[in-house]
Amino acid sequence: MSRNLVIVGAGAGGASVAAEARRRDPSLEVTMIERGGHVSTAACPMPYYIQDLIKDEKMLVARTPEEFRESGVNVRLETQVEEVDRRQGIVRLSDGIMVPYDILVLGTGTVPIVPRVPGVDLEGVFMLKTLPDAMAIKTYIREKRCRKALVVGAGFIGLEMCEALRGQGIETELIDLAPRAAMMWDPEFTALIEEELLRQGVKFHPGTGLESIEKGSEYQLRLNSDRDVLEADLVLIAIGVKPNSTLAAAAGLRLGATGAIGVNFSQRTSDESIYAVGDCAEVYHRISCKWTHIPLGDIANKQGRVAGINIGGGAMMFPGVVGARCFKVFDLGVAATGLDENEAAEAGYHPESVLLWGNAIAAAMPGEKKLGLKLVADRSTGRLLGAQAVGLRGAVERVNALSVALAAGMTLEEIGYQDFAYSPPFNTPWDLIHVAAQKLAKSIGR
Amino acid sequence: MSRNLVIVGAGAGGASVAAEARRRDPSLEVTMIERGGHVSTAACPMPYYIQDLIKDEKMLVARTPEEFRESGVNVRLETQVEEVDRRQGIVRLSDGIMVPYDILVLGTGTVPIVPRVPGVDLEGVFMLKTLPDAMAIKTYIREKRCRKALVVGAGFIGLEMCEALRGQGIETELIDLAPRAAMMWDPEFTALIEEELLRQGVKFHPGTGLESIEKGSEYQLRLNSDRDVLEADLVLIAIGVKPNSTLAAAAGLRLGATGAIGVNFSQRTSDESIYAVGDCAEVYHRISCKWTHIPLGDIANKQGRVAGINIGGGAMMFPGVVGARCFKVFDLGVAATGLDENEAAEAGYHPESVLLWGNAIAAAMPGEKKLGLKLVADRSTGRLLGAQAVGLRGAVERVNALSVALAAGMTLEEIGYQDFAYSPPFNTPWDLIHVAAQKLAKSIGR
Repeated sequence: MSRNLVIVGAGAGGASVAAEARRRDPSLEVTMIERGGHVSTAACPMPYYIQDLIKDEKMLVARTPEEFRESGVNVRLETQVEEVDRRQGIVRLSDGIMVPYDILVLGTGTVPIVPRVPGVDLEGVFMLKTLPDAMAIKTYIREKRCRKALVVGAGFIGLEMCEALRGQGIETELIDLAPRAAMMWDPEFTALIEEELLRQGVKFHPGTGLESIEKGSEYQLRLNSDRDVLEADLVLIAIGVKPNSTLAAAAGLRLGATGAIGVNFSQRTSDESIYAVGDCAEVYHRISCKWTHIPLGDIANKQGRVAGINIGGGAMMFPGVVGARCFKVFDLGVAATGLDENEAAEAGYHPESVLLWGNAIAAAMPGEKKLGLKLVADRSTGRLLGAQAVGLRGAVERVNALSVALAAGMTLEEIGYQDFAYSPPFNTPWDLIHVAAQKLAKSIGR
Repeated sequence: MSRNLVIVGAGAGGASVAAEARRRDPSLEVTMIERGGHVSTAACPMPYYIQDLIKDEKMLVARTPEEFRESGVNVRLETQVEEVDRRQGIVRLSDGIMVPYDILVLGTGTVPIVPRVPGVDLEGVFMLKTLPDAMAIKTYIREKRCRKALVVGAGFIGLEMCEALRGQGIETELIDLAPRAAMMWDPEFTALIEEELLRQGVKFHPGTGLESIEKGSEYQLRLNSDRDVLEADLVLIAIGVKPNSTLAAAAGLRLGATGAIGVNFSQRTSDESIYAVGDCAEVYHRISCKWTHIPLGDIANKQGRVAGINIGGGAMMFPGVVGARCFKVFDLGVAATGLDENEAAEAGYHPESVLLWGNAIAAAMPGEKKLGLKLVADRSTGRLLGAQAVGLRGAVERVNALSVALAAGMTLEEIGYQDFAYSPPFNTPWDLIHVAAQKLAKSIGR
């Protein structure tokens, strides 16, 4: 008798489970239930689609419902799951239908945080979460010939959207309650980000909140901040997301301290026949050694595959993450990995750090090359704990090499003499990684 | 009483020793003896200087003799060391002067391999080893208004020089005895390199040797290969280098199997008062676990610093290299690290490999993104042993992340789920590294 695998949510995580589990065990009866009209969509490229660097929304879909159906996966679109009945082993859908499961996977993603101010539901006010959101924004820009946009939230999506909107020729202002953009990065680095915004014609208002949005003349939106009244014909709200774990909570599954669904290394929840993957689930952070919530597409893909392997009869543990993340804002690459000093101290380490400016490529070579690199390490062991990098080139690649070093538990001494492939167009004989690692090793007396 | 530190050869390695040792122990009496007229020159950027991307030869000098002298280092230029008398602890110079040493450092570098054919000493025939070589080539190109060049040797210097010469508007042909360019790389990758040469107007003659060079009409050089007679007004010979270890051999120091000077992890030779650093010395390869000869500037810098620390009273081991190397040929990045299958088998591993083509950045993003990646791993342990990558973008950064993985002894399973900072302009959610590692893990039944 074949087992019923029911997957709730067909984003990167859920779709990965379906593909992997079905490939490993073709006898599985797989049903994927999706609230929206698309499956297997990639959220990360959406700003580039809005910017029209990516022309066709089909490019944001890894696999269509038809392709899933051809491979033998049942796909139910536009269908909400109302309840998980664990005792009976069924999920109840919005249309009243009951779907029995032997194994259930929750890939319910996140919900955007909506500011509690009047006017957020007006036409022309958007959040960017789903493919229809992206399509609606792109259509709105074209149809209304938008000239002036306001972005609320200077996190990485807000910053990417500033670039997208400017790329569409739209005058763009950015507000955030926080005193700086991209608060997860060091002030020296966020200063560079803010310079880049200025250089690209984006006016940034730090420490500025949204009070209300009012509709003025045709397609004009009025917005009250702490200081000013700004006008815009498009408002993009990107102040963060929270894990969509209501279904799991209602079913009595254990949630983690982050509010996301608690899972183990096999992606199993507190109910051994229920898995959770992607942005709705927690993920183990290998440096803080805590379960945390990091809603990123590449993690969702990995968790989905791990769950799919285990469901399909294989054996796989997800080793967790080191906290690697990056984004591009205009010409600037911004990346980080591991822990910052506060997170490190909270985890019980004795953090020390160094922040250096240097060159991404050989000083003698032409072209932009200024690169900033910060390393955080533990004083008692010399172990690397985290890194941040910002620059017109080379930031992401430094952080990714250091992400491997973090996963391996390397010390500053090891990193300070790490063998890298060197050539003047790509880096420097003593890379900024070496210089920073040796300097920090020295300053902690190692 | 202060100790005499005598350094023979003031390239990247020797100059690093002088700087580091002197900084740590200001009481050291440091004398740096250099055969040429410059110290602390960077060889790797020389092709870009010849191409005139780097305008000023001063950019190739990290520290001038004057700067060394100001910091208290004696510098003797244009001075050859004739003999090391270990019993008396002196070096005898070409001008007859005897310099006593307590600690001697050999940083004698390499000598270019000169083909034994008539005409290699004609005007217009060059090798690229020293700063004066680079300056002479650049001057010759300008003064003779060179129109047609022949490059002998399709290794990385030969290939970089093809780019440099084409960048100067010079018609360029390339010959090599080997059947492919950049033989250290896989045929699928060298095919791409040869395509790039063709696309950039460089005619490549594989399996072609140099028989003689004859002088024809004014500044015309006639050259007989196995097949053709080619004409050129400039010939650049880059068929390799060998360690310059004659002084060490004559002094009875142990040479390694590679012909380079044998050293230990502290950069000491078989005589405990004599160190060797840089291209004249061997280096420990952490994957083959053999002492090898890899003459590269970044390694020379590291060995020089390690020797300088030890001489200056500190304690430092050079952990060795993983064999990371790269070069650029026109728009193509070419990189490798670790061992190829033959080297791995010779070292006693059970190598298996995978070669994949994919995208350096998200498929939906515009721009060139084709990237090739090859991984070599050990069947019995699943451990990564080596990697190669070629592409218009992203090759070097993949190889450098994998170089860290090699240093850490990571397995394919670990690499297959490594956390990398992901964003569509920089990479893909499943990076080609993940895909290749998982595929290879599967094919060796792990």
